[in-house]
Parts: sequence; C-alpha cells; structure tokens
Amino acid sequence: MSLVLNREQLSDYLVEVFPQVEKDFVIDSLDENSITMRLKVGDRHLRPGGTVSGPSMFGLADVSVYAMILALKGRQSLAVTTGCSMDFMRKPDGANDMIARCSLLKLGKTLAVGDVLMFSEGSVKPVARATMTYSLPPAGSAAAAFG
Amino acid sequence: MSLVLNREQLSDYLVEVFPQVEKDFVIDSLDENSITMRLKVGDRHLRPGGTVSGPSMFGLADVSVYAMILALKGRQSLAVTTGCSMDFMRKPDGANDMIARCSLLKLGKTLAVGDVLMFSEGSVKPVARATMTYSLPPAGSAAAAFG
Amino acid sequence: MSLVLNREQLSDYLVEVFPQVEKDFVIDSLDENSITMRLKVGDRHLRPGGTVSGPSMFGLADVSVYAMILALKGRQSLAVTTGCSMDFMRKPDGANDMIARCSLLKLGKTLAVGDVLMFSEGSVKPVARATMTYSLPPAGSAAAAFG
Amino acid sequence: MSLVLNREQLSDYLVEVFPQVEKDFVIDSLDENSITMRLKVGDRHLRPGGTVSGPSMFGLADVSVYAMILALKGRQSLAVTTGCSMDFMRKPDGANDMIARCSLLKLGKTLAVGDVLMFSEGSVKPVARATMTYSLPPAGSAAAAFG
Repeated sequence: MSLVLNREQLSDYLVEVFPQVEKDFVIDSLDENSITMRLKVGDRHLRPGGTVSGPSMFGLADVSVYAMILALKGRQSLAVTTGCSMDFMRKPDGANDMIARCSLLKLGKTLAVGDVLMFSEGSVKPVARATMTYSLPPAGSAAAAFG
Repeated sequence: MSLVLNREQLSDYLVEVFPQVEKDFVIDSLDENSITMRLKVGDRHLRPGGTVSGPSMFGLADVSVYAMILALKGRQSLAVTTGCSMDFMRKPDGANDMIARCSLLKLGKTLAVGDVLMFSEGSVKPVARATMTYSLPPAGSAAAAFG
Repeated sequence: MSLVLNREQLSDYLVEVFPQVEKDFVIDSLDENSITMRLKVGDRHLRPGGTVSGPSMFGLADVSVYAMILALKGRQSLAVTTGCSMDFMRKPDGANDMIARCSLLKLGKTLAVGDVLMFSEGSVKPVARATMTYSLPPAGSAAAAFG
Repeated sequence: MSLVLNREQLSDYLVEVFPQVEKDFVIDSLDENSITMRLKVGDRHLRPGGTVSGPSMFGLADVSVYAMILALKGRQSLAVTTGCSMDFMRKPDGANDMIARCSLLKLGKTLAVGDVLMFSEGSVKPVARATMTYSLPPAGSAAAAFG
C-alpha cells in the first residue's frame, strides 16, 4: 500500500484537525510501512519524579496510529479509536523527548490495528508498548462511527 | 478491608502529590468497595466535534484506580501503573462532566487490578471501560517500582 | 433489549454450531442483561498444580460473550472475535467448576463489547476478568467478517 | 542476556512440566532475542469453518512467552501469567500450522512482558497479536505467585 499523504501533507493536516496538539507532536519520519512520531516533552507532560505522564503516552500512541491511517487512507478518513491496550515497562525520562515507532498490523475496510513502541530518546529499551484499534466507518457515514 | 483514608484525607493527599491535576478531578464518593471520580470537563479535555479526548479518559481511569489503592493502603503507597486496557464504546458528551465508577478486583501484596466504567454525566450508557494494573513495591523499595 | 432466544433455544443452538464444546459448557442462567456460564472442569482443563488452564478460561469468556450476543441478536448472527483483554488475579481451584458472569457493555450495529468475571464455584473472589470485542458484520456479509 | 537453556534443553523441560501440551507445540528456533513456536494444528484446534480456535491461539501465545522466559531464567522459574491482550486480525487457515514469533519487551525482577505475532504458515500477514504479562516471584517464594 502506498502513501496517499507524504510527511508534509500529513503534518499540515494534523495541525488543521488537531490544532491543540500541534505544539506536542512532530513526525520524525514516514514511509508506507511505519511512522516515527516525537512527543516534545515539556512540563505539562510530566508527573512528580520527572516521569512522562500516562495520558501523554496514551496520546502519543493514539496520534501515531491515527496519523499512519491518515497517511494511507487520506484526509477523508474517519477513524474512531475503539480500543487500546498498553504496557508500561520502564520509567520514562522526562528530560528527553519520547519517540514512538508505529506500524499497522491491519488496515481493513472496517477495522485497523496499530502497534506502537515508545522510547525515551537516546535509549534502546522501550518505555511502553501500545496496541490501538480503530473502527473505520464507510466513507460518508460519520454517523456510524460509534457502530 | 476498611478505608485508611477517608474522602477528605484522600482528596487532600491527591492535591499534595499531583498538584497539576487538582483542577481536573473531584472525588464524588468513596467507600471501602468503590470510588466515584469526576472529571470536570473543560476546553483542554476536548477534541474537535465536542468529544472528550482519549488521554483525558485514560487520566480519569488511572487516577480513579490509584486513588482507590491509596484509600485502602495509605499515603506510603508507591503504586506504579504497569498496564491498561480500554474500550471506547460511545461518543462522550463534551458538554457534561465525565463520571468514573471504579472498584478493585484485586489488591494483593505486589499487584493491584482496578476496573472502571466511565459515563457522561446524566447518561446510563457507559462511554468507556478500563482495567488498570499496578505494581505495588514492598514498603521502602521505591527502586523496585519498575521491577 | 429483549431476548430473541431463551436459555433452552440458546443452549440447543450452541450445541449445533459448536458440537465440540457441548461437553464443556452449561448455561446456568440467562436474562436480557446477563448470562451465567459454567465450565465443567475436567482433567483436560487442568495444568500442573491443579489449576485451570489459561486457554480454558479464554474459551469460557469467549463462549459467554458470544452466547449473550446470540441470545439478543438471534441465530443469524456472525459475530467474530476481534479483541480480548484478560487479567488473571487468583489461582483457580481445579477441583471446582468455573463460573462466568457476563454482560454486554455495548451491542451496536457493527461492534459488541462484553465484560466477564470468572470465579471458582463457591468463591466470591474473582479468578479472572475478561473483556471481549466482536465485529458484527451486516446480515448476509459473512465475507466482511474479518473487515 | 544469554540463554540459560538451549533449544533441546528447553524442549525437554516443557515436555516434563507440561506433558499434556507436548503433542501441540514445537520450538522451531530459539536465540537470546526471540523464539519461534509452532502449533501443530489438528482437529482439536479447529472451529466450524476451518479456523483455528481462539483458545488454541491463546495457548500458543502463552507457551511462547513462557518458554522464552524459561530459556533466559532457567528451570527454577515460576512465572505466573497475570495479563493478556490479543487482537485477532485475519482468519487463520486451519489447514496449516500456526507459527508464533515472540520476543520479550521486558524481563525484570518481578515482571516480564512478551510480544507475540502469529501467522498461518506460509502467509506473511499476521493472524493475531498478543501481549502477555507475567509475575516473576522471587526464587523460593512460590506462595507469592499470585501476589
């Protein structure tokens, strides 16, 4: 499957639909098999002890998979997150950005599944993993999104 | 198992350790079997279309289970979130607060499991469910938290 | 939502479509909100140490949710399991049957989510919990089952 | 981390502790980073329509991660499965064996997390993914297994 949106187009589109997250995320790289997304870690993402908060990691995983779906399906996509499982394995380093490497395990007509590994930049041991599932309503049926 | 902290004590302690979340969460009720936690939904929790964001719901689930563990184990607890599974079932209503009803399925020596149902206030149909798991390091072994 | 199949009809149908599981499962009770399913624990479900195996508990959770969907949607249903999360909290007692209490959190047009608590008979503390998700293809579109 | 048990030793040990699964599983390959486990698909693993059953896939995922822990920790290990999340993405082909590729994302002192992708032999598209989590009791504390 080839990319419908390249990195610049995808980045512009994310800013357009999620203006509130523009300051948080950067697409480091994108090809037809995977995306690397960066969370620009700032004070608002931290918890006492200098770790990155769980909600921030959830958000990073979610935007990574969503962006990969958009890159392959195009702007008209209406993917709705229906499920998530995460394992938190190591303490994230709040002094560094967090890097998510994401690929899709499935991109079907009605269901997408994305896999994400998250690292504190500079470390090779994963901080967390996530699997996110999405419902993909048929084009034009936004009302069906919560099937 | 009886409460070690009552609602006021628990509320004070959460403010002390998580000053950044004070504005977001309120404990509506607490007894030895369950806690009801409110997310005071504001603009910062919303996504386009007026729904409550996934990270906000993750945060609500996490703080609910964490608070219930604290209420039963006391201030010295060092619970570390190790896993999460969530299902998103209906579109949350961004015009209303979100209410989480949480109980613990297990509170062992080293492992706790909490179950959470989340509702938009005024609706009886759940918006999302979550199960959160926590590692409970032995007292005094903070270093073991990421076991 | 009212039952389309009563307990006897549902039981007969399960035997018809899953002849290999007839010896394992019994529907203890059924109403429009919940089902109680029994795993008749035998040697083939056990692991060393006298505990019930994980696959046996997975099977119990899956058949419970599937049966509840059938009871509400009828025989023509083609629910396909798309996801599962389970937490194993206590050691099951291989000398007793295992009882699953299941209810549906969502039964939409294309997605169903069921919640299951499992107990060793005679104990009030849950051995495991599970959430199972199903894709519900539109009637007549079996080919779409793996969307 | 280097292997404590090689493929033959690991295989012998699995037969010893799980005699009932000997006929089901074969270790295709093992190194310090990953294991490939084969489910020898037979009639007892099938469901109507010729697909491999969910419990069989759960069992394959569980034994794969468990075996990888044993290979790195040795025979004295007492890993207890505490959690599982699975996504079922494509219809398995009941006419072929199922192959699981597994690696550990974490092998700590008290917690292990393993990641598994499962394929019908001969296909490159994954049928299912699983993450399994294990509690690792300190040596000699079997009683703590369900912490």
